[in-house]
Amino acid sequence: MGGYFGTALMVDLTERTAEESLLPGEWYRDYIGGEGLGVRLLLDLVDPEADLLSPQQPLIFSTGSLTGTAAPASGRCAVVFRSPLTGTLGASNAGGHFAPALKRAGYDVLVVTGQSAEPVVLVIDDEGVDFIEAREAWGKGVGATEDWVRDQVEGTGWQIASIGPAGERGVLFANIVTDRHRAFGRGGAGALMGSKNLKAIAVRGTGELPLSDPEGLKEAAKAAREELFNEAFVRDEMKPYGTPSFYDAMSGLGILPTRNWQRDSFPESIPTLGYAAYHETLEVRPYACFGCPIACGRHTKIRTGKWAGMEGGGPEYETVAAFGSKCEVMDLNAVAAANHLANDLGLDVISTGQVIATAMEWAEKGILGKDRLGDLALAFGNAEAVVEAVRLIANREGIGDLLAEGSARAAEKLGPEAEAAVMAVRGMEMAADGVRGSKGEAVSHAVSPRGADHLRPYASTVDAFGYREPELGIAADAAISIIEDGNKGWVKPLMANAMIPNLIGTCLFTNITLAIKPSTWAGLHSKAVGRPMGKDELLLAAERVINLERMVNATFGFDGSTDILPERFLKEPGADGPGAGQVVNLKESLESFYEAMGWEPEEGLPSVETLTRLGLDWILYGCD
Amino acid sequence: MGGYFGTALMVDLTERTAEESLLPGEWYRDYIGGEGLGVRLLLDLVDPEADLLSPQQPLIFSTGSLTGTAAPASGRCAVVFRSPLTGTLGASNAGGHFAPALKRAGYDVLVVTGQSAEPVVLVIDDEGVDFIEAREAWGKGVGATEDWVRDQVEGTGWQIASIGPAGERGVLFANIVTDRHRAFGRGGAGALMGSKNLKAIAVRGTGELPLSDPEGLKEAAKAAREELFNEAFVRDEMKPYGTPSFYDAMSGLGILPTRNWQRDSFPESIPTLGYAAYHETLEVRPYACFGCPIACGRHTKIRTGKWAGMEGGGPEYETVAAFGSKCEVMDLNAVAAANHLANDLGLDVISTGQVIATAMEWAEKGILGKDRLGDLALAFGNAEAVVEAVRLIANREGIGDLLAEGSARAAEKLGPEAEAAVMAVRGMEMAADGVRGSKGEAVSHAVSPRGADHLRPYASTVDAFGYREPELGIAADAAISIIEDGNKGWVKPLMANAMIPNLIGTCLFTNITLAIKPSTWAGLHSKAVGRPMGKDELLLAAERVINLERMVNATFGFDGSTDILPERFLKEPGADGPGAGQVVNLKESLESFYEAMGWEPEEGLPSVETLTRLGLDWILYGCD
Repeated sequence: MGGYFGTALMVDLTERTAEESLLPGEWYRDYIGGEGLGVRLLLDLVDPEADLLSPQQPLIFSTGSLTGTAAPASGRCAVVFRSPLTGTLGASNAGGHFAPALKRAGYDVLVVTGQSAEPVVLVIDDEGVDFIEAREAWGKGVGATEDWVRDQVEGTGWQIASIGPAGERGVLFANIVTDRHRAFGRGGAGALMGSKNLKAIAVRGTGELPLSDPEGLKEAAKAAREELFNEAFVRDEMKPYGTPSFYDAMSGLGILPTRNWQRDSFPESIPTLGYAAYHETLEVRPYACFGCPIACGRHTKIRTGKWAGMEGGGPEYETVAAFGSKCEVMDLNAVAAANHLANDLGLDVISTGQVIATAMEWAEKGILGKDRLGDLALAFGNAEAVVEAVRLIANREGIGDLLAEGSARAAEKLGPEAEAAVMAVRGMEMAADGVRGSKGEAVSHAVSPRGADHLRPYASTVDAFGYREPELGIAADAAISIIEDGNKGWVKPLMANAMIPNLIGTCLFTNITLAIKPSTWAGLHSKAVGRPMGKDELLLAAERVINLERMVNATFGFDGSTDILPERFLKEPGADGPGAGQVVNLKESLESFYEAMGWEPEEGLPSVETLTRLGLDWILYGCD
Repeated sequence: MGGYFGTALMVDLTERTAEESLLPGEWYRDYIGGEGLGVRLLLDLVDPEADLLSPQQPLIFSTGSLTGTAAPASGRCAVVFRSPLTGTLGASNAGGHFAPALKRAGYDVLVVTGQSAEPVVLVIDDEGVDFIEAREAWGKGVGATEDWVRDQVEGTGWQIASIGPAGERGVLFANIVTDRHRAFGRGGAGALMGSKNLKAIAVRGTGELPLSDPEGLKEAAKAAREELFNEAFVRDEMKPYGTPSFYDAMSGLGILPTRNWQRDSFPESIPTLGYAAYHETLEVRPYACFGCPIACGRHTKIRTGKWAGMEGGGPEYETVAAFGSKCEVMDLNAVAAANHLANDLGLDVISTGQVIATAMEWAEKGILGKDRLGDLALAFGNAEAVVEAVRLIANREGIGDLLAEGSARAAEKLGPEAEAAVMAVRGMEMAADGVRGSKGEAVSHAVSPRGADHLRPYASTVDAFGYREPELGIAADAAISIIEDGNKGWVKPLMANAMIPNLIGTCLFTNITLAIKPSTWAGLHSKAVGRPMGKDELLLAAERVINLERMVNATFGFDGSTDILPERFLKEPGADGPGAGQVVNLKESLESFYEAMGWEPEEGLPSVETLTRLGLDWILYGCD
């Protein structure tokens, strides 16, 4: 029999116990692994009535079937939880080297529940589980925390995931960070980890992954890498320039959020924030996660000025937009400083930049006054204020305490006039991917299980960038309009395709570029687990997980009535690019998308027929 | 959402703890309930390396989707365990009224593990779980035990399942008995329960079953009852005469085991053991399990002679054959006395009668001598010796101590010459259904998951009795030979059909008579659980469970190499009926059956393709 699936490590921080649990094999068959498996386990463990930061809330690290293997970019791990920011499903994903270590230690899945009385580090290796008192590390940034943890444990080869002060202080968009700058981002996994007094997790594993066909997997992985680099975008942009190379194109296509989404392009910033400037201004070297032949990560160091010497991972495209264009800041050094600071303090850079941009609009409109802002001169274009705001938010100092709640909750406290500047869906701040200039992004942001989400499925690949993939039923000559509402059936297979890497433990970038095909992944997965699987079955599993997530969110009170977008996109026409003069007609897009998904038009939930087709009908029985 | 599935009560007798556990919904979808669900849970809980009577061995009571509903004959419960007699999967099933009470108390499934330090009764009702010290009840028969338990608990409406002295003393074919004579039989569930010092389980439940469509279910149940009584055999034989009515026909068809299977018919016994004699000799009244419109059970009282006044459930056909024809005993009062005694002492009447018949042959051949037999005059035809042997076995007195190990283990102790008289498959004694005169029975006995088994699928219905069922692909005009080896593909759908009631919690008799169709059951199940299911899906689930059981047995070390029959059937030609002059050519039958099942010809286990088709491929991953 063999195979390496099935063992979850269940850690209770209250009791300081750890036990192994075998997960049902049917879950691996149906949900594959990674986020899918994690969500299924969440449904099992979560009490929908419990407080969002209750000690009983589970924090689930879940690796995929290909995590840690020869498959390209297979260093990924999902973190699944209920988001304290949004109340929806929380599903974060990071690369780095943490997940392969966990798997080699013998665990697919790590579940942390409970709350330690004092700050603690959880230590996991082949030999077992240990707890290290960590009061000394409390307050440290993630870089210093990684160093401190490595001083406490014996030997080398430890991989660490930790929180910074933001997580400790319950900033609702705090991240868990590994490798100093690879973040389990979006939705506040760091706040949940902080509420458990869990400062860090150290993992070391030396076991062999008992793959079904390791040689066959290596061969197939070689072919997959070739497939990856046959894609010009990966080869000629992602690899040499990383994600900052997107910036110029996003502006050109009118999908670059600018001045808190009042504009959709920012041409005047290209000379200082564009990707040529990026490589001239900063000292840049590439960074690769485990097993990644692209190495899209940038490690940068600020050369000059006030923040000279600061260094770290990024800024990525999203961060340049978050601290740059959204805030109308054109100083790349300030963007990089805010980025390095946010990463080290354990903040989600996307939410942080968006919260700051929203706060700038509030300041401009007089909704946020001097009484709340204190010395912080929050205004569009003020680079230094951005960097300072990052520090205040992470430490919950001054105005930072309000902003640490996220823009939606902050607006509730500021009054109804604050609502218009909140650029969030279900409480999660928008990333930097325009929806007026990509109506595919519009509908996918509206329905995403974790609030505003640019990655599920990064639809602008198809409508704004014009990519096609016959394996997804999107023919080479398919005419798909960037700015047309309705007719969003094509988002469905794209969404399934974008789910695949989250299940198998590989990087989303291989799929949202449409570089590696579903059939290729199905082949790799088959060689790992020792049973035949074709692309249709893998895509069906992805669709199953998407629907499972929809049902999990339904138990949390979210249905079609919460499939919304910020009013700005529905009422204020775009100013730039193909989306100029356009608002989003969400209703039309949702109708066509629901229909393609087999979701009821009224409630926006999977029909009984859809659940039955996907083998999810048991949810209707009332089973867990 | 709603629905009533998913809650298992997990009782640890060592710790005296009880907790509720929600079982994965996927298990209900894939394995439906009852035995299927129980087997899946067993795979999860059992350690194949553990001693067969180790405290950690789980004893799993599992109800079905229709248990306790308006569906006809829906009072059934499966008990799943690893058999201490055979080492294979143990799967027993009883009617009575126990299962509906368990379900109304809020539990689909009851799992008992551990070992109580002292004899104990487990008490379960709507309010919770209690333990009653039961040293006083130890040694009592099941009738006195039920009375005693009812004296200990408050109020009325208690249903009790208990063991007698046989279970207490570890007779390896001891039963668990409910309603005084409805037995969880075959394979020694009673011995396992006794090893846990668990004398009885008392259950009372008053909750409503939250059925999806109770009114629709009632309507459909009415139609199912009509279907049942449209079958002449059910209407004109089973209902008025019960199973003893089979006796004459079995003898006439040459499939009545006689003189330890040296003969296949016993015409000279018809005047005293036949069903006319049965109703003349004994005082008979019908007995019905929960919700059963047939009421095939007979309650009898001995009118005259040495055992006058003894009463109880049965003897059924199987018992008349076990203590009668197999032992060449023609005294129905003796048969009834042995039956009542065996039921009350908690013995499996089938194994007990077969063990005695085998021992009679050993005595005749001088393999069992006076040194071992003592005063017991064990010889074919000695009615009193049969009754006395029952008592000795249950109490493990004298020769009973050896016979209590089952005929296969006893033979091992007696030496190689004892083997020929052992009429058992994988250590489980044959019931009373001939295999020389029904080659369908031959192959199904050889492959049965729990050793010699007449109920999976009672193939003589089709080959010896000539029944047909188009829904199973057995056409009305299909010519199927009683005595032909090979061409046993038809056993596959019949086996799936016979598995259905074990999953949904109804009585096998409705299905081995081919009275109620799979489509009818699928409709009833759909109305209970609130999702559409057709006959093909239900039959597929049954096939899935059959293959799961095959794989579970593989983990216990059983594969095609243990698909055998007693040598007598392979070497000694039949003497009577259509099978006269015939031996069984098992190889040919197995080949054709394996092929139909999609099992590998060499190892006799499901191929990867078969496992994948049935969604059981996860077993190959090494998951639990």
